[in-house]
Amino acid sequence: MNLKYKYAIMIIGDLKMNIRIGVSARHIHLCESDFKKLFGSDKALTKHVDLTQPGQYACNEKVNLITEKGKIENVRILGPLRDYTQVEISKTDSYSLGLNPPVRKSGDLKGAENIKIEYLGNIIEVKECCIIADRHIHITYDDLDKYNLKDNQIVKLKISSEKGAILENVKVKASKEAFFEAHIDLDDANANLVKNGDYGEIIYE
Amino acid sequence: MNLKYKYAIMIIGDLKMNIRIGVSARHIHLCESDFKKLFGSDKALTKHVDLTQPGQYACNEKVNLITEKGKIENVRILGPLRDYTQVEISKTDSYSLGLNPPVRKSGDLKGAENIKIEYLGNIIEVKECCIIADRHIHITYDDLDKYNLKDNQIVKLKISSEKGAILENVKVKASKEAFFEAHIDLDDANANLVKNGDYGEIIYE
Repeated sequence: MNLKYKYAIMIIGDLKMNIRIGVSARHIHLCESDFKKLFGSDKALTKHVDLTQPGQYACNEKVNLITEKGKIENVRILGPLRDYTQVEISKTDSYSLGLNPPVRKSGDLKGAENIKIEYLGNIIEVKECCIIADRHIHITYDDLDKYNLKDNQIVKLKISSEKGAILENVKVKASKEAFFEAHIDLDDANANLVKNGDYGEIIYE
Repeated sequence: MNLKYKYAIMIIGDLKMNIRIGVSARHIHLCESDFKKLFGSDKALTKHVDLTQPGQYACNEKVNLITEKGKIENVRILGPLRDYTQVEISKTDSYSLGLNPPVRKSGDLKGAENIKIEYLGNIIEVKECCIIADRHIHITYDDLDKYNLKDNQIVKLKISSEKGAILENVKVKASKEAFFEAHIDLDDANANLVKNGDYGEIIYE
């Protein structure tokens, strides 16, 4: 029996901060080259709706993801085009596709899974593009001090719901322009009964 | 800005216990009457494989779940037959079925969702049967003292993985016969990258 008692006198610094939660469903970012291969060189992304992060938007255009094991249809493209193509799926999605994508921050794609992307019969295979996005917090460099955070700091995110959890390994991701928000994926959201736009609490440790 | 500093000197009682994690995929329990309506009065459940809880087994028989919005095929029956029919799905499943099932312990079905169950063209509609199972710990009455737990106590379950979390609202569920194990659903497992048979840690608070 692995029973362990630890009694200690500790000084606790307990600092809490509410933060809006953004839930990321599966989506794809495309580089210009891959976009042209799929959609043709005379086509451009068209905006469906703005996202909370400045300059980012959901597009009307959707693609299909294809592996040897499965297919997921109608995966929305997020704009604008980036320097790299990146597919972000959940662990649940990965089982239906037969993939084992690593948990990564955006753009860190070495060792990511390969995947085929299809639009109206045009198919491209993109190497090292498919990840499970890490839990992260968007914040401006200017706001780091205000919220007592450091770029790349790992914090926890408390979610209060009928199930409830404290999510670990939430990485602070500062940029020049950002909307202060914690991004989690759909598995995290469904497991803990939260929705896009709900609020959580940063736990600083 | 909701910023709150609390500094305190506290005495911490930190008691930890490793526990095996059982991951419950969607499944169904049937009462004898509903089983007969679906399979006929001369049929019996057949065992596919024993489960960890004594006397419980996965059956070879599977059914389809049907709602106005969707259908989930090949949902495994768990045996033996019970006094009530109960469908246990995840929040992710609930979206594809267009349902909003409550989070409940087994058998607590008042206000649960209605659902249609199909086997080879036989369809029954069962009222108040579909839930999201609560997170719970199976333990014998005899072991409660040994593990410093009380029946119906709410504890937390720490999961260590690349994502990691402390799951809240995990209810102790004692019975005469039980295998000591924490049951979580597939959303919890996928969100936190754990599998059936992995170990977590009970956090007593």
